[in-house]
Amino acid sequence: MLLNYRMILKVQGVILLILAVSMAPSMLISAFNGEKGSAVAFLACMIPLSVAGLIAQKIYLRTSTVRIRDGYAIAALCWILSSIFGALPFTLSGAVPNYIDAFFETVSGFTTTGSTILTDIEVLPRGLLFWRSFTHWLGGMGIIIFAIAILPALGISGHQIARAEAPGPSLDKVTPKLTDTARILYLIYIAMTIAQIMLLTLGGMSLFDSCIHTFGSMGTGGFSNYNASVAYYDNLYFEIIIGLFMVLAGVNFNLYYDLIRGKWRDFFGDNELRLYLGIFGAATALIALNLLLSGYYETPGGSMRYSFFQVASIMTTTGFASADFDLWPTFSKMILFTLMFIGGCSSSTAGSLKVIRVLIAFKLIAREMFRKMHPRAVVPVKLNGRPVQAVIVSNITSFTFLYFLTFIIGTLLISLEDFGLVVSASSVACTLGNVGPGFEVVGPVMNFSVFSNASKLLFSFLMLAGRLELFTLIILLTPGFWNPDR
Amino acid sequence: MLLNYRMILKVQGVILLILAVSMAPSMLISAFNGEKGSAVAFLACMIPLSVAGLIAQKIYLRTSTVRIRDGYAIAALCWILSSIFGALPFTLSGAVPNYIDAFFETVSGFTTTGSTILTDIEVLPRGLLFWRSFTHWLGGMGIIIFAIAILPALGISGHQIARAEAPGPSLDKVTPKLTDTARILYLIYIAMTIAQIMLLTLGGMSLFDSCIHTFGSMGTGGFSNYNASVAYYDNLYFEIIIGLFMVLAGVNFNLYYDLIRGKWRDFFGDNELRLYLGIFGAATALIALNLLLSGYYETPGGSMRYSFFQVASIMTTTGFASADFDLWPTFSKMILFTLMFIGGCSSSTAGSLKVIRVLIAFKLIAREMFRKMHPRAVVPVKLNGRPVQAVIVSNITSFTFLYFLTFIIGTLLISLEDFGLVVSASSVACTLGNVGPGFEVVGPVMNFSVFSNASKLLFSFLMLAGRLELFTLIILLTPGFWNPDR
Repeated sequence: MLLNYRMILKVQGVILLILAVSMAPSMLISAFNGEKGSAVAFLACMIPLSVAGLIAQKIYLRTSTVRIRDGYAIAALCWILSSIFGALPFTLSGAVPNYIDAFFETVSGFTTTGSTILTDIEVLPRGLLFWRSFTHWLGGMGIIIFAIAILPALGISGHQIARAEAPGPSLDKVTPKLTDTARILYLIYIAMTIAQIMLLTLGGMSLFDSCIHTFGSMGTGGFSNYNASVAYYDNLYFEIIIGLFMVLAGVNFNLYYDLIRGKWRDFFGDNELRLYLGIFGAATALIALNLLLSGYYETPGGSMRYSFFQVASIMTTTGFASADFDLWPTFSKMILFTLMFIGGCSSSTAGSLKVIRVLIAFKLIAREMFRKMHPRAVVPVKLNGRPVQAVIVSNITSFTFLYFLTFIIGTLLISLEDFGLVVSASSVACTLGNVGPGFEVVGPVMNFSVFSNASKLLFSFLMLAGRLELFTLIILLTPGFWNPDR
Repeated sequence: MLLNYRMILKVQGVILLILAVSMAPSMLISAFNGEKGSAVAFLACMIPLSVAGLIAQKIYLRTSTVRIRDGYAIAALCWILSSIFGALPFTLSGAVPNYIDAFFETVSGFTTTGSTILTDIEVLPRGLLFWRSFTHWLGGMGIIIFAIAILPALGISGHQIARAEAPGPSLDKVTPKLTDTARILYLIYIAMTIAQIMLLTLGGMSLFDSCIHTFGSMGTGGFSNYNASVAYYDNLYFEIIIGLFMVLAGVNFNLYYDLIRGKWRDFFGDNELRLYLGIFGAATALIALNLLLSGYYETPGGSMRYSFFQVASIMTTTGFASADFDLWPTFSKMILFTLMFIGGCSSSTAGSLKVIRVLIAFKLIAREMFRKMHPRAVVPVKLNGRPVQAVIVSNITSFTFLYFLTFIIGTLLISLEDFGLVVSASSVACTLGNVGPGFEVVGPVMNFSVFSNASKLLFSFLMLAGRLELFTLIILLTPGFWNPDR
């Protein structure tokens, strides 16, 4: 058999159960706020999902090994099914009548993109607003990583699935057992989430709003419950807290475990973290200077404030906005556009290419320069003082090429809508990179409602492909995957 | 000694002599047309250049070996000096009063870019128009390759210099001796040039115009003597001939030598050539379809005609225009923008990344897909049936990364002029790729005169860097080049 279908179904059952349980808080919020329609919509999803999930657990497994193909199928299917079912409450409640819109919105949620098709966010029932943002939180750390913490109880090993969900270059093993790693990462994630909610409420934000904006920052998603996003508050304290937590969520979570164990040197010496903070600092300073010198803001403080927040938001691929950056000078916009292709650190909740790949690209350029002068020299690429295996370097370069290839093909297809080059390129860059807002028609105060259904499905594909680091989703579309002889 | 300065000076002397001789036809054309000012300007350059060149030949060489560092210094200096002195006639004659404009124009000529700072081209004296286009022809095959055909007579080996001028992936040796190769390539180039001039004059184009447009096509440069470029004629025959020769000039010239020797299989089986023609055909068909369906042109014939010419012009990085493609639908523009990053074949007169690097990138992606399914498999990347050395693959990926890095840094700097994202990105893409026109302010009916002197110098750097395949120019800016211990 090409695939272990029993295994795939059983694991999807676990995912459905997680999804059903995840909807409970949103359902309760709807109920407490007297939003009958959406409360019923949530229940109408939760009950069949739970039943289907429980039935799937009865499936008898002939073998508990998960092969490579199974891992890819499970990971891709998990994200697709979560989005298909997670979208139902929006349409069933009547809040988002077009199911494709609801699907786009849910994919945007789970993939922590934060692009929206809603023109008026504020009219949405509170239960749905909560669900919309909660998908960010679930998708940020990864639904599958959550499942992995449970799977061993069912006698299933999660290694191949974890590889397929985040096949990034950094597969550091924090602990010998993958399950323990998954649990530790989730604990850190939960602790930081609670901290941010507390800090926001202490500053005077309502508990509901605090949750919404914390889910958006920790998952680097970017859904707000206000049309104006974070600019709605016009509050420096909130911007600092949200900005800070976005930057923290863009850091490799394995490094936090180092920090907890007192390994300060591993944390602060990490090459990727240093470049991440370096780019963040340089981008913030350059944009602040550009905003000040161009007279867009009158004071250095104001320029710094808006620059800091926007750089944090775009670089971590969150997408919150404290200002309409589409009106900023070209230089500032170009920096933000570049950041959309860099993203946060590997093993963070951020998307896009990731800083580590940019770092390796820099190192490859430097090595080639050296080789030009010393043609016979053999120089390995080093990371944190240790040489990187050639296979991993090759993986990183291939990924980078595939990323740009996907970007170009996506942009070509979207350009058929004839909204101009900037809209075509930035809408694809910000969905593929899981960023959220782009420029012009898809700018921070605009939304994706202008696009056709076909384009919305393409954007959904790009968001999923970006979140699953391309290969996992695209490999399923190659003939080689479905050919048992290859 | 870090560099062999005597050798460098002596070779630059040869270059100056070539430059002086090259100005003779333009000087004569000026004289015959009674353009006294420009005839005098040419003479005022030719005499000191010849004297300096001849004096340099008296330099005694202690050694005739050219080391790696010397090769880079010679190649870079050759292009810079040619541009500095080649620009003088424009300013001395008073036709282009600002020397930086003249420098930009000459760099654009030698690098076969074809971007112009002239708002009204047609008022230029004919001698200068000829010179402007003749720089395309000289730069197309390479001033240095020309010099290499002469250098052995001076007892100098040109290998290291040839490597530095075109360090591309394909250093096929057509013949065992580099000098013979250089001569054969120039003979093919000259034969094709004569053929195109004849075909254009047979169609009724004046001999002068035929030369101008042949230099522009064979060198893949794109300077025309009309403001409207090739659209001035509105003549299908001219468009077909010019289009055809642009496509031919974008082919690896080594393959023509295969063809002459009857090696048909090597020619038609070449992987790069096939992909080049494949992309060319697909882009032409897609743009024609888009132009027709969007109603931009009413007939399939008209859509095909303008699509064919523009795709040929942009993909080969020539830059002639038979229509104002800036007014075309977004999809067509996006295809052209993508082609700006692909360019022609290696060892052709075309610029940009080159098809071979795109091909290798595709192969790396396919290999990675295969590896995901078969983690233990060792699969070499193959080209024309033979495995490609890992060092060459690494060179290609590093070059591609450096290309995008240069593009991003260039775009960031140009975006300080605040002309918007499309102008910033396309002006850098079309200078770095030696294409010529971009979009909006730098579109086919516009020019680069709107930019500041600083930006014009930056564009000049980008054109030179693109023509010298980046490393040669950029390596001179690294501390490692000037440090004798490294």
